[in-house]
Parts: sequence; C-alpha cells; structure tokens
Amino acid sequence: MADQQARPGEDKRPSEIPVIRWEEPPEGPVLILLDQTRLPSEEVELVCTDASALVEAIRSLAVRGAPVLGIAGAYGVALAAARGFDVDEAAEALESARPTAVNLSVGVRRALAAYRDALAATGDPTAAATAALASAQALHREDAEASARMAAHGLALLDELMPGGGHRVLTHCNTGALVSGGEGTAFAVALAAHRVGRLRRLWVDETRPLLQGARLTAWEAARSGMAYTLLTDSAAGSLFAAGEVDAVLVGADRIAADGSVANKVGSYPLAVLARYHHVPFIVVAPVTTIDPDTPDGASIEVEQRPGFEVTEILTPQASAVGGGGGVPLAPLGTQAYNPAFDVTPPELVTAIVTEEGTVSPVTPEALAALCARSRATPTA
Amino acid sequence: MADQQARPGEDKRPSEIPVIRWEEPPEGPVLILLDQTRLPSEEVELVCTDASALVEAIRSLAVRGAPVLGIAGAYGVALAAARGFDVDEAAEALESARPTAVNLSVGVRRALAAYRDALAATGDPTAAATAALASAQALHREDAEASARMAAHGLALLDELMPGGGHRVLTHCNTGALVSGGEGTAFAVALAAHRVGRLRRLWVDETRPLLQGARLTAWEAARSGMAYTLLTDSAAGSLFAAGEVDAVLVGADRIAADGSVANKVGSYPLAVLARYHHVPFIVVAPVTTIDPDTPDGASIEVEQRPGFEVTEILTPQASAVGGGGGVPLAPLGTQAYNPAFDVTPPELVTAIVTEEGTVSPVTPEALAALCARSRATPTA
Repeated sequence: MADQQARPGEDKRPSEIPVIRWEEPPEGPVLILLDQTRLPSEEVELVCTDASALVEAIRSLAVRGAPVLGIAGAYGVALAAARGFDVDEAAEALESARPTAVNLSVGVRRALAAYRDALAATGDPTAAATAALASAQALHREDAEASARMAAHGLALLDELMPGGGHRVLTHCNTGALVSGGEGTAFAVALAAHRVGRLRRLWVDETRPLLQGARLTAWEAARSGMAYTLLTDSAAGSLFAAGEVDAVLVGADRIAADGSVANKVGSYPLAVLARYHHVPFIVVAPVTTIDPDTPDGASIEVEQRPGFEVTEILTPQASAVGGGGGVPLAPLGTQAYNPAFDVTPPELVTAIVTEEGTVSPVTPEALAALCARSRATPTA
Repeated sequence: MADQQARPGEDKRPSEIPVIRWEEPPEGPVLILLDQTRLPSEEVELVCTDASALVEAIRSLAVRGAPVLGIAGAYGVALAAARGFDVDEAAEALESARPTAVNLSVGVRRALAAYRDALAATGDPTAAATAALASAQALHREDAEASARMAAHGLALLDELMPGGGHRVLTHCNTGALVSGGEGTAFAVALAAHRVGRLRRLWVDETRPLLQGARLTAWEAARSGMAYTLLTDSAAGSLFAAGEVDAVLVGADRIAADGSVANKVGSYPLAVLARYHHVPFIVVAPVTTIDPDTPDGASIEVEQRPGFEVTEILTPQASAVGGGGGVPLAPLGTQAYNPAFDVTPPELVTAIVTEEGTVSPVTPEALAALCARSRATPTA
C-alpha cells in the first residue's frame, strides 16, 4: 500500500480552479465551464452560448455535483434571458436535465423568479435579464460562503467525534471545489482538517462507473497537497475491517424530509459498512439539498444512466470503438444496471452537516427546524 | 435497467472452453493456457514451455482462479520434470507465484510428491515425470468432478433456502469454467440453477480493479445463455435495498480453519450487505481451499497488488501510456491501496458448499469434520 504524501507547500486555493464563470465578450454573454469529463488529463473549458449547450453539458457530466448544478442552472436562466431566448422553456429544459439533483431545480427557479419579478415590475426584458444574472451571482457567492461554513461545522464535528486529530477520512465521489462556488461540501471538511494539520489520510474511493474519485477528487487532493490514497470502491471493506477509517464524509444530491440521503451510487454500501464497524457516516450538504417536498427515501426518483458507462471505459486517450464511444470492458451486447445514485436511510446517517449547523441524530423534526431557521435567515 | 435475456439454445458446455491443456508436440511437452487477460475481446492461447513461463502467466493473471491454479501448478511441476529442469526449484517458484491461493500450493505439492515417490521407487527421472503428469491429470479430472458435485450441493441449498426457484443470484469475480477443470465453483451453482430453469437472474459484479466479472463472468454467462446483468461493485447496495438479491454466491481463495474466507476484494462488503439485508451469503469452494494450517482470518496473508491496476485501465485496445502500460484514470503519480483479497469472518458466511457437502452454520468443528471426511475418501 502506498499513497500520496502531504505537500503543504503546494496547497492551491480553490479560487484557482475555474469551475464556472460568466463572461461578457463583445459577441454576447457566455457561461464558461471547466469540462470535468476531460480531467485529470486536460484542463479544457466549455463555452456555452445558450441554455441548450448547458443542458448538454449537465447531461454529459461536464459540469456535475449538487451545489454547482444549482449555480449552473441559475446562470443558464440568466444566459437565456440575456440572449433573448424563451426563458420559461430554457428553465424547464435545465430543470429536467438531471432529475435527482434538487439543487439544480432550486437554482433554476430562483433565477427564474428574479427574472419574472423584475419583468413584472419593469416590463423591461433587459432589466429582467440583469435581475436573473444578479440572482445567479448571488447564489454563486452564497454557495462559496456556505462551503466555508459547512467546512467549519464539519471540522468541529470531526474534532468532537475524534478528539486529538489524526483523522483518517474516507470519501466517495467528488465534493470539492469542482462542485461548488467555494471549496465544496464533504471535501471542504477534509480540506479544513488538512489545513489545521488534523487530517492524517484521505481515502479516496475511485467511484465507478465514471471515476469521479480517481479523476477529480484525487486531482483536487493532489492540488491541495493532502495525504491521500486511491482505492477501488469495494476495497473500502478491507480498510474498515482493518480499523483504518475514522469517519466517512460524503455529499448529497437530495435529502428527503425524513433524512434519507440520495447520493452517488456506492454511498449506501459505505453507510452499511460504517454502521457495521461503528464508524460515523457524515453527510455534508447545503440546506438547499434538503427537499421538504420529498417525504422519504422511497419518494426519491433515482436517475438510471446508460449501461455503456459500465460496459465501456470512457477515457480521453482511448480510441472510441464501443457503442457509447469508449473501449469495451464487457462482451459486446452486455447490458448493465446503472443507477446514478443510491439512497441511505436516516438511521444509518450519523450527522448531516449544513451551512446552518449540524443535525445529529437525523430526525424529520430536526431537519424541519433547520430548514425553518435557514428560511428565516435573510439572503443577499 | 436492462439485461441479457436467457437464450437456452445457446448453452455451450464448458468443455468447449479450453482453459488449460497439456500437449506433446514433437518439440516437447507444453502447457497451453487461454490468456484470460485478453478476454472478452480475444481468445488467445499462451504456450508455456517451462515453469517460469507459467509463473509469469500466474503472476500476470493470464491464468487465475483458485481451483485452476492448483491444476496449473501441478502441470507446471510435470512440465519441469518432462523438460528436465530442476523440479524442486520449479515447484518452489510456482508455489510462491501467488501467496494467498492455497490451491496452487496444494496442486504443486501433490505433483511434486508423485514425482519424488516415483523417483525414489524407480530411480528413473522419466518415470518420475510420467508420474507427475499423471498426478496433474488426476487433479484436473477430480476438479471437474468436484465442480459437478459442488453445483449439485449448491443447487440443493438454494432450493432449500428459496423453495420454488426464481433465484436472483449476485456473484462477484469469476468462478466458472475459466477457473476450473470443470464448470467452476459459485458460477457452476448458478449454471446448474439455470439449466433446470430456476435461475431468474445472475447479477454480475464487475469486480474492480481487473474487471473479472465484466470481462470473464459476463462472457461465460453470455456463452451459457443465462439471463445476466452487469453492475458496478458498489451498485450492489441498491439491489439489496430494492430486495432484488435472493442469495450471494462467491468462491474462495483460502478458507481458514475457523471458517474465515479469503476471496476477491469486494466479497467482504457483500457479506456485510447480505447480513444487513438478511440475504444468504454462500461460499462455494473445493475442500482443498480449506487450509487447516491457517487458524483464522488474521493469519491469512493478503496479497497486495501494484497500484497501477487501480490508477490505470488495462485494456487490450487502449494504447499504453501509463507507468503500468495502461491508460491513466487518476492524476499521474497517484498511488493506490490495492489488496487482491479481503477476508470475511465465519459469522457472516451462511454456508460453505464443497464437493463433500455443505457446512452450515460455519464452525471450526464442522469444517474439521468435513476435511477429515474428505481425506478419508480415496482419490484417483
């Protein structure tokens, strides 16, 4: 077993990772995304000049991760407005680009509401477009602030659960600066622990089928100089059995009112392993991830993705020969079960960390109180 | 979700899969292996003219899987003897080619004992080489017979646990004709259920990092016309949660005297999931897999394999650009934790099915009794 050694000198701040940004060149406004499907080999930007390009970028996972999807959705509405497209139509297409991510829908609706309110008040589409953009930018800024608050709350929780530091944290999928207006969710907590010298090891699940852990989290961990080690998702069992995991930190794509957590497929098996080994399973997500309209886990619609993500490997370097454009791993014609997410019931979740504070134990009442507190807080 | 439909007409008998065979062309005896690293895209044979070629084939996983490793090891000794090499040296190299697989060692020692006995009795190296080969061939034959008996015992157990058939079986790694002188271990049980129309679905874990499930089990399932569906290892959690798994069937690389089971990494998380969901976790392995000299799980040496198996993807089609000869999946320089096996404690194992019968519950006493019964049975 080997791993990356911590190189504190190489810590780069996430502001250097240009995940999503709005620009206004003479040709008209554009939304520029870092194409996450090309990482870690290449840092390539995608320029979206309309909402349908953004919808395609969301579907292809060029931009992914719950919080940044909300920001992207809001900018998408602003882009449609600024470019003079049908804003309602754009909003609808954006909202349905990925069904499980509640943040996407929240972001889209927020910018749409700003647009409509301004249009109703002024009757001026240009003023309404400006309002939509201001709303997207406010969301972007708030998300960065929320990241910082989640990191602080999460670090406090880790220190409370494991006094003395030396945390060995296992994480799944990618939840850092790439998914956020700031430093992310679960990853931001690990990064905060790293910065104060209390992270001993970040165990990075590779996260099949799309390898967000291997491609993106390892990339972010390396950039931040963290001590990290990559593993296949199912090797996590051996780490738990060996007592090498102090806590599991994951993000969330949707949290139901009862505390059920939809997150990247593979999270639920980790929650079961964590429970079996008496290790805390901690979910870090902004309050917008909590969806009061989804009563429980069974009500969460889980996106089923194409089988070729499992039967083929999609690497930028590999020549495309399979039906999905990748290199076949399984016999041609093999079909696959490929849910994007799984659902972890609240009884397996030790705590939900949000920018408004930590809920533990996870109960419908505690979540409802948190949401009420959050709604009472004025936003920019 | 989609899957392969059963096509009973396409059932091909495993004798058509030329996994390992001994030939004696004019140039001298050779051991011919189906190169499993090239499947499923190509069916390529590897010709071994000496034991060191075989050691390399074992290390590179061109031949892999507990029972067939024993057969290969025995043939390796016979090959060294027939070619006039130092037989003791060859046996030692073969035995240490993979440390966890006890069958390899058992096969090597059996052929070596036959060689030494004949040499002591006759003083004739040619007669001793003939004896070693006869011993390897007997092991090959016995393994085929053992497969058939394991399949029958396993099917009886499935029918007992789930009367009425319609079994939905989840399996991990590859345990079919490719690993055996016959039809394999866990896969042979599923195949037996398929032949009598009682297998509703074979769920095939892809089995990272080397994808033996995607590459090999899917290939065998397709050849046999079974209804199968491929999934990433961590998507198994969603299947359990949805009640879509009736039983887990896996093989074993070593079973300690206390019933701890070393098997392909990813087996232990399945055992924990199976326990959490009250689903039987069944291990199918020949008696030779039980090692009375290994008292418990902690005594099992688990092979740690190179990190590039995780950080790169090794596909025959992909152009080699990474340090291990594959296409990089993670940032260059990322190192990985890559245990080949994990260890499942006996309390998570519902039953161990062998050619001599089924042990359930799994206790040291029941295993010892089974081994004693097996040793009392005369072998060819």
